[in-house]
Amino acid sequence: MSNNIPVFDDEFNTKLENLFKWRRDVRRFKTTPVAQKDIDYLLNIATFAPSVGNAQPWRFVMIEKPETRQLVMDNFDNSNEDALSGFDGERASLYASLKLAGLKNAPVQMAIFTETKPDEGHGLGRMTMPETLQYSSVLAVYSMWLAARTLNLGIGWVSILDPKKISSDLETPNSWAFTAYLCIGYPEEEHIDPELVRHGWQDRTHLDGKVFYK
Amino acid sequence: MSNNIPVFDDEFNTKLENLFKWRRDVRRFKTTPVAQKDIDYLLNIATFAPSVGNAQPWRFVMIEKPETRQLVMDNFDNSNEDALSGFDGERASLYASLKLAGLKNAPVQMAIFTETKPDEGHGLGRMTMPETLQYSSVLAVYSMWLAARTLNLGIGWVSILDPKKISSDLETPNSWAFTAYLCIGYPEEEHIDPELVRHGWQDRTHLDGKVFYK
Repeated sequence: MSNNIPVFDDEFNTKLENLFKWRRDVRRFKTTPVAQKDIDYLLNIATFAPSVGNAQPWRFVMIEKPETRQLVMDNFDNSNEDALSGFDGERASLYASLKLAGLKNAPVQMAIFTETKPDEGHGLGRMTMPETLQYSSVLAVYSMWLAARTLNLGIGWVSILDPKKISSDLETPNSWAFTAYLCIGYPEEEHIDPELVRHGWQDRTHLDGKVFYK
Repeated sequence: MSNNIPVFDDEFNTKLENLFKWRRDVRRFKTTPVAQKDIDYLLNIATFAPSVGNAQPWRFVMIEKPETRQLVMDNFDNSNEDALSGFDGERASLYASLKLAGLKNAPVQMAIFTETKPDEGHGLGRMTMPETLQYSSVLAVYSMWLAARTLNLGIGWVSILDPKKISSDLETPNSWAFTAYLCIGYPEEEHIDPELVRHGWQDRTHLDGKVFYK
């Protein structure tokens, strides 16, 4: 034990609760540049995420070249067109009206991959559930997402992408699994309600019918 | 925009950084009971996690009956024995010496499942990456993990479990995927370094060789 053990008081907890609520999936970005020190801060915060066996399997690919960004945009456009074709009638119109990614404007873009065969961790904790490696990367993503909001930065997670295509476009190692694509920048607007609630796609369901006892 | 948009100052950010660092995977629990209001608080916080298409696919199963807990312990013991047999020599001795779960003492235990065919979200965002449903549940887990630490509660994520066996033991619906098992309670001790670092299993690797530019 040490005297440096932090104490989290009610004031902090209220603010933390606000952070959970105001952390939003952002798709509308200003083109204002983001300071390199802020990106470095987020990446550093990511390294404190929990990981299975302490394998720290996250790999961060900063997508910077215009031609690389174009490949990602093409990937999104194709995947989104396929997705739209799966809806009919009003749902299709509503889907088509949604803004689902900020790929055109977000000044910082980052792909997160997971090393599925890391030496680190020596396999501990993942024999029966190898997917916990990807889960570890997801925890790193959420760490950045929360920390970004405190810097007034927004993050949007784009999942409407073909993972095989992005892996081949980025020429990543075979053992890397594509896990997440993040758009990062200053948001055009702030909301406490998710964009998909605000635009009538899907309401919050709270805990209704989700807690069981065994 | 509204005047209620929260502002996160440097003092909050320093404490948040401490929270990321002091949130630990806890395996050594006191048997002190946890107040129901604290569990309710954590579950409520979980519902503010981001989820793909706002599908909110997390399902929380409180493991309360002694016979149910015994099934989980048996599952862990069998899975851990299998895992141990995969190591040789010093690694095997070290593995055998590690405390990898707090299943005996943790007063609160919770299994998190993911509804893989939710109506909610209407399929948005997960056509090319269906695993983002499980990732959404992982984000709910991390929300609870961070919030728990501010209440001086520790959480340990047990992944050395056979997911098929836990699903059949708990008789969960076929469309549910087992995602995480959490031990929750007051920790016996507080550390800033992960247990696996302290006991010589795996050091932190920071960002070394993990950031790329394309």
